[in-house]
Amino acid sequence: MTPIIGVFDSGFGGLTVLRALLQRIPHACYSFLGDTARLPYGSKSRRTIAHYAAEGAEFLVKEQGAEFLVIACNTASALALDAIQEVVPVPVLGVIEPGAAAAWAASKTGDVLVIATDATVQSHAYAAACEALGLRVLEKACPLLVPLVEEGWTGHPVTAQVIDVYLKELRNQAREAGLYYDTLVLGCTHYPLLRPMLEQAVTPGVQVIDSAEATADAAMRLFRMEQAGNEPPTADVRCFATDSVDKFERLGSRFLGRPTGKVELVDLGG
Amino acid sequence: MTPIIGVFDSGFGGLTVLRALLQRIPHACYSFLGDTARLPYGSKSRRTIAHYAAEGAEFLVKEQGAEFLVIACNTASALALDAIQEVVPVPVLGVIEPGAAAAWAASKTGDVLVIATDATVQSHAYAAACEALGLRVLEKACPLLVPLVEEGWTGHPVTAQVIDVYLKELRNQAREAGLYYDTLVLGCTHYPLLRPMLEQAVTPGVQVIDSAEATADAAMRLFRMEQAGNEPPTADVRCFATDSVDKFERLGSRFLGRPTGKVELVDLGG
Repeated sequence: MTPIIGVFDSGFGGLTVLRALLQRIPHACYSFLGDTARLPYGSKSRRTIAHYAAEGAEFLVKEQGAEFLVIACNTASALALDAIQEVVPVPVLGVIEPGAAAAWAASKTGDVLVIATDATVQSHAYAAACEALGLRVLEKACPLLVPLVEEGWTGHPVTAQVIDVYLKELRNQAREAGLYYDTLVLGCTHYPLLRPMLEQAVTPGVQVIDSAEATADAAMRLFRMEQAGNEPPTADVRCFATDSVDKFERLGSRFLGRPTGKVELVDLGG
Repeated sequence: MTPIIGVFDSGFGGLTVLRALLQRIPHACYSFLGDTARLPYGSKSRRTIAHYAAEGAEFLVKEQGAEFLVIACNTASALALDAIQEVVPVPVLGVIEPGAAAAWAASKTGDVLVIATDATVQSHAYAAACEALGLRVLEKACPLLVPLVEEGWTGHPVTAQVIDVYLKELRNQAREAGLYYDTLVLGCTHYPLLRPMLEQAVTPGVQVIDSAEATADAAMRLFRMEQAGNEPPTADVRCFATDSVDKFERLGSRFLGRPTGKVELVDLGG
């Protein structure tokens, strides 16, 4: 039986998680829902985000038949995982715990940095997950990185400067806090597109951890999927969005690493 | 009788319009609603924006008793003015036509540039309004400027570079189109906070027109308000938001030019 995996995001950034899932579990069927009518979740309250994410999860499970759910949105994972698990009867995986676990596996000093959106940082969900693993952690919001990625400036000198500003502030804060960090966690699904620039900008020796890849690894284990063999991939991918289908199709392929195909418009009643 | 003026925006950028209104009509009562739960409108479809904006307008008129409405949001003015006028029985003023009229009054060559969000540009509402006045017009989306303002980088060298990139592209496009522009319209309520940087960056001799100020001038005429005399201002301002009241209070005073006071949370049912 081909498993059906639902992937939920506030927008289309979570396509970087789907991309990592496709590399590891290429024989599943995927339904991806981007709640583009109500993005960004990053600036909204916990109550609102929980309400929106639960509606999206119900669509994927009840209407698309998803047997497993990946919440490919850091903000929703941080603020709404409990609310989602209450409304759907399938295993649900967020991106926070896998990202923290990957940081734990990578760090030798036990001190890690996390960059993310405002709401993810304010939730301190990464800090909680990292501290539960005995790591010391410093989180920083980098609100300009998402719009820079969406503008397509993933190799632009202005983006390099913005990254330098943020990382310099982060280094100063780490110094003040006495952290000897060796790991930087990308706590936003847009950031993998900036990974080359971020790897160039970090202090030499600092490892960059991509939550998207860590989540796909965790999905394989949680959902008891087998690692892909040499068979040709047969994955079927259907993409849904609550608004702005054109923008999703135009920008989404950059995140997914292949064309998204026709994106279907759905109404969650918002 | 003290008039009650409702001011609607998708976020709090429209506080720059309220600021201009307060300078001109300081004796009115104002109710400002920012639909922060569902911002940004700039990346959403016409259908969604019309639905959201109509709900906001109904709140201001039916629940707050507004006798006049200013739609202090370029995207909603561009895409939802008709939808709003259908649901409320009071005079409604958007920011597009006043901005175009001010450009018409300022331009000697008859060629103007407009910078705005993606959705405002894609609606070509400024182009239509300018062309109806016999102007030739070139519109450009500058998606990074709103997040830069919200990050507080209104005097930052990175912002100056982003502005240079956008204005250079705009100059090249104007040259190709054979436009001899002498006027730049700020078609987004966030942009007045970048006015000093924009005025520094434009070609000498180019006038910068602020739609917020143009709209407040138009409101005085449409609503038959008298110009403020020398009496002390008595304006009463109440601010409402659909989410993220903290962020509204924290950032809003920069836009309004004075503290917003306590922002009240309202639920529009989204």
